[in-house]
Parts: sequence; structure tokens; C-alpha cells
Amino acid sequence: MAREPRWDRVLTSAARLFAEDGFAATSVRAVAERARLTKAGLYYHIKEKEDLLFRICEHSIQSILDGARAALAAESDPAARLKALIRNHCGFFFRHPHNLTVLNRDMGALTGAQREEIRALEMAYLDLVRGVFRDGQKRGRLKKLDPTAAAFALLGVLNSFDRWYDPAGAVTPDALVEHVETIFLDGVAEERRK
Amino acid sequence: MAREPRWDRVLTSAARLFAEDGFAATSVRAVAERARLTKAGLYYHIKEKEDLLFRICEHSIQSILDGARAALAAESDPAARLKALIRNHCGFFFRHPHNLTVLNRDMGALTGAQREEIRALEMAYLDLVRGVFRDGQKRGRLKKLDPTAAAFALLGVLNSFDRWYDPAGAVTPDALVEHVETIFLDGVAEERRK
Repeated sequence: MAREPRWDRVLTSAARLFAEDGFAATSVRAVAERARLTKAGLYYHIKEKEDLLFRICEHSIQSILDGARAALAAESDPAARLKALIRNHCGFFFRHPHNLTVLNRDMGALTGAQREEIRALEMAYLDLVRGVFRDGQKRGRLKKLDPTAAAFALLGVLNSFDRWYDPAGAVTPDALVEHVETIFLDGVAEERRK
Repeated sequence: MAREPRWDRVLTSAARLFAEDGFAATSVRAVAERARLTKAGLYYHIKEKEDLLFRICEHSIQSILDGARAALAAESDPAARLKALIRNHCGFFFRHPHNLTVLNRDMGALTGAQREEIRALEMAYLDLVRGVFRDGQKRGRLKKLDPTAAAFALLGVLNSFDRWYDPAGAVTPDALVEHVETIFLDGVAEERRK
């Protein structure tokens, strides 16, 4: 019953510590202390530290993927679908800023079956993003760019927020979402180049 | 006389090994072997492994910065200046794909004065990119977006190539540059949204 909320707290604590100190430098004991568990209590949930990294990555990508699927189900217009993807991905970052740092920097420490599982989730998300570009192109509403290059360009913007964005700074979260929508959909030039 | 070419080979060998195996897992001995030097010969150039990482980061950012300054000196039109920045940054990546991986993933291992020096170079480059957005906005040619958000969005795209781009794949290097120019300057929507 109380297991799920406590497990959420474990993952949130672990993501924060991994983001701040790095995966390699963080001990299971430090995660247990932050999550207000004994080390033995934490080892009830996991076999080794890599399991925490795996669960953070899995939870993050699965959440972004589930959110994107739900958002896309509600939109049929290609521009609106692209905006829905942007809004969903940004929303996850605003709620879980540390998770993005862990995904960007520490995911490479996963091995074997865990690595494969995370790669499959990443690929599912990439396919979803590419599909939005492809579909919009077929319908004549988006420019005929390579869907993989377009998808990775968008993901490059969205996955770099943890390197610089401060929600207490000059750009509010809502304004950040609007910036990405404007840049991606309309470009930064005042008039379109010929 | 022969010192400079040999030192270039050391940095190229080190960047390749760091990119492939990670900075932590690469030994000075492995770098020396790859660069066809003795370990003692390599230690003539450096005091410790971190010095190689520092020199790779310094050389990379300084090269991008020098190239950008030279390219901007030749252009006055705001859209052409933004294109010149994109072309210069992409060009460095095409010539030194491993360096981008090292910058993205391993730069955090630098400490003290070396870290500060690299941060100062990064900040100089960021200021240059922001300046291009700011200047284009003042002249009414670029949209009034937050220059920092716009600059980091562009750098997010340019610095993520090493995660996915394969020059032997469907998108040629020239086409990749054109994709980034189109997305950034004109956006992906066929018609501008109101």
C-alpha cells in the first residue's frame, strides 16, 4: 500500500543525488539516507546501485512516452501535434529536472538487458516523434525535411534544458515552451528566406 | 619543429579513445600507444591525464570560437550571420566528431583553474551566439525571442549531433547544415502560424 509512494521517494532522491554528485560518486547509503530508509530497507527494493539508475531512466522515458501518446491522441492537426509533443516533454522536465541530467549523463553506465530495455524505450519515443514529422509532411503541412534529422534536432533542444535553464530566471516555464514552439514551427527569421 | 603535428596527433588520439571508451576508463598508456609515443614521451607533454582532457576541450572550443569570429567578420546580414555560425559549428563537428562527445560527456571531470578556463571559453562563445540573435533583433530581422534561450536552443541542436549523426547515412553533411538552417531560420511548418 505505502510501497508505491515510498518507491517514488526513493527514485526522486536517487535522481537528485545522481544529478548533483554523479552516478559513480553516489553511494546506495546516501540514497537510503535521503529517502529516509535504512540501507537494508533500500536493498529490499534493489539488488545493486545500477537498478536505481535503470528505474530512473525507465520511469522517465516511459512517463514522457505515455504523456506524448495521450497528448497526440487528442490532436489531429500536424502543428498542434508537434506543439503537444513539445509541451509534454517540457512538462516532464519542469516536474523532474534532475531526471534529465541523469538520462543525459549517466545512462551510459547501464549494461546488458537493462541497457537494451532503455534503448527500446528511447527508440519507441524517437519513432513517435519521427511519426509526427512524417505524418505532417504527408499531409503537406510540414516541410519535407528528413524526419530523423528533424526529430533529433527537436530532441537536442528539449534534452539540453538541464544544462542551462533556470525557472527562476528571465524566461518562465510557459515562455520557454512558447520559445521552442516558435523556433521550431515558425523559425527565428522575421521574414522567410527565399 | 615536428612538435606541433605530433601534439595534434596526441590530441586526436586521446579524443578518439575518450569518446570510445570514456575518459575514466582510458589510460595514458593507451593514448601514448595510439599516438605512437612512449608513455614517457607523452609525459613530456603533460603532467597527468586531466591535462589531455583540458587540451582537447580548450582546442575544441577555441577552434569553434576562432572560426565563428572569422566567419562573422565576413557577414553583416543577420540571417547570413546566423547561417555562418551554424556552418562553422557543424564544420568543426564534421572534422572532429569525437571532440564533441568528449566536450559533452567528460568536460565535467575538469577541476580548478582548468575548469574555469574552459568555462570562460564557453561563455565567450555563448556571448557571441547571443550577440548574433540580439543584433538581428535590434535590426528588426530576427524575432524578439530571449537571446539566451534562442542561443541555447541552437547550441542544443548543434551539440547533439554526436549522439545520432552518421555522415554515411541518409543525410549528407551539407544536407545536415541546410536542415539546421531551415529549422532555425524558417521553422518546420509549411505556413506560418498566426
